[in-house]
Amino acid sequence: MITISENACFGGTQGVYSHASDTCACDMTFGLFLPLEARDGPVPVLWYLSGLTCTHENAMTKASAQTWAAEHGIALVFPDTSPRGEDVADDDAYDLGKGAGFYVDATQEPWKPNFSMWSYIAEELPKLIGENFAVDMDRQAITGHSMGGHGALTLAMNLPGRYRSVSAFAPICNPAGSDWGRKQLQAYLGDDETTWARHDASLMMTERGFDGPVLVDTGTNDQFIDLLKPEALAEAVAKRRQQATLRLQPGYDHSYFFVSTFMEDHVAFHADALYAD
Amino acid sequence: MITISENACFGGTQGVYSHASDTCACDMTFGLFLPLEARDGPVPVLWYLSGLTCTHENAMTKASAQTWAAEHGIALVFPDTSPRGEDVADDDAYDLGKGAGFYVDATQEPWKPNFSMWSYIAEELPKLIGENFAVDMDRQAITGHSMGGHGALTLAMNLPGRYRSVSAFAPICNPAGSDWGRKQLQAYLGDDETTWARHDASLMMTERGFDGPVLVDTGTNDQFIDLLKPEALAEAVAKRRQQATLRLQPGYDHSYFFVSTFMEDHVAFHADALYAD
Repeated sequence: MITISENACFGGTQGVYSHASDTCACDMTFGLFLPLEARDGPVPVLWYLSGLTCTHENAMTKASAQTWAAEHGIALVFPDTSPRGEDVADDDAYDLGKGAGFYVDATQEPWKPNFSMWSYIAEELPKLIGENFAVDMDRQAITGHSMGGHGALTLAMNLPGRYRSVSAFAPICNPAGSDWGRKQLQAYLGDDETTWARHDASLMMTERGFDGPVLVDTGTNDQFIDLLKPEALAEAVAKRRQQATLRLQPGYDHSYFFVSTFMEDHVAFHADALYAD
Repeated sequence: MITISENACFGGTQGVYSHASDTCACDMTFGLFLPLEARDGPVPVLWYLSGLTCTHENAMTKASAQTWAAEHGIALVFPDTSPRGEDVADDDAYDLGKGAGFYVDATQEPWKPNFSMWSYIAEELPKLIGENFAVDMDRQAITGHSMGGHGALTLAMNLPGRYRSVSAFAPICNPAGSDWGRKQLQAYLGDDETTWARHDASLMMTERGFDGPVLVDTGTNDQFIDLLKPEALAEAVAKRRQQATLRLQPGYDHSYFFVSTFMEDHVAFHADALYAD
């Protein structure tokens, strides 16, 4: 693991690190914020999964997350959104290939084996972080924005017991039924839609739900709201009687101005779960 | 004036606008955050002047300033740092020409007449904003980072009565005595160093001071601290018995992680002055 940078930040440290990833078969870069409390021992951790076109850097610099993570003594992980490098397959479209890993393990060429963001987030990166930093992997929570909200919700529901709480900002709620999803799930996973189901938050909510609290914010003026389909998740949450807070925020759009506005609420929500008992 | 974008943000609106600037003889772009309170009438305003290489956008997205401006009901202006456009002179160096206006009115070719950031910030932009938005130009304060901290301090001391308070993050304190300054002041203003003096915060502090509170933060690990020369300003402040708080923040560097960490303090500092009486 290589240290790219470390900056003092809200009493703690905002680091950027890279490592040779076996899972993605390329070098991967991630951001990690450690609050002051991490100097005295392992702290709970909140994962932030980013959206289409983002790298590890966008949320790290634009989401105001460290402000509130420092207040609650929580670490933040900012993974990249796809494998990277000249040898990694790509597509001309912004929403497929690099910057658009969709948090799945690709089974199809040419995306296999690099595009394995599911296993990278679920297995390799938490192991690496747990071994190298003062982060308590028994106290994890997860959030994300847009494609990253999709990732957060599907990881949380597929890995019961892993995350104490899950939240999302403007998540892609029903990728199997949206132009933000069908193209990518087909490209990465193939034509058999049964393999897509576990990567669709609304279908997973219908099928399984989440054993903990859920918080989702979506802006009423989100320019992509027809692609996000918050109504699909809302219906599934209500039918399941899932413990959840779903909010439609008047006037907000899809930008980081929306994310940063509600970040305080999301970090406080996760802190409640991470510090319970 | 053209609206480039408007995003809901912390209950208010983060806008980006462009206009044909007479002062800079080119189109100029700026960011303006208006808090919710601006819907009911004019609100006080805090200017944020950015550093070398920045546009209007950097601080607008990375400084966490809207979080606290919304809390205090204060507008924020994020001007660009230089004139822009294909017809505007430039230099290969990052610290001269575009992105490096240094908040002076150039008297020398080829920088004259476009490089007139002093008059742009002091005259044209406040007039434009006062006429078009619910901003109370009788309640102004100013801050900035690095080159922008230099701009904030020199504008504040040269325009008594204009700003109620001034603060800076890692300002260039003594450009007439630094490699971050001598080259630019010579290029823009010529060889006569007497014309530089009003653009040097330490010299202005010695000469005139500021009729109001001053707050300056600099990181002890700032990688540019030898160019910033905080010791020159500290000496001048102490000699003048200027009302001021000068802080050296342990471990912090020159980045926006430093700026965002202390933004809460700076906005609260200005709010105290803006809401006095």
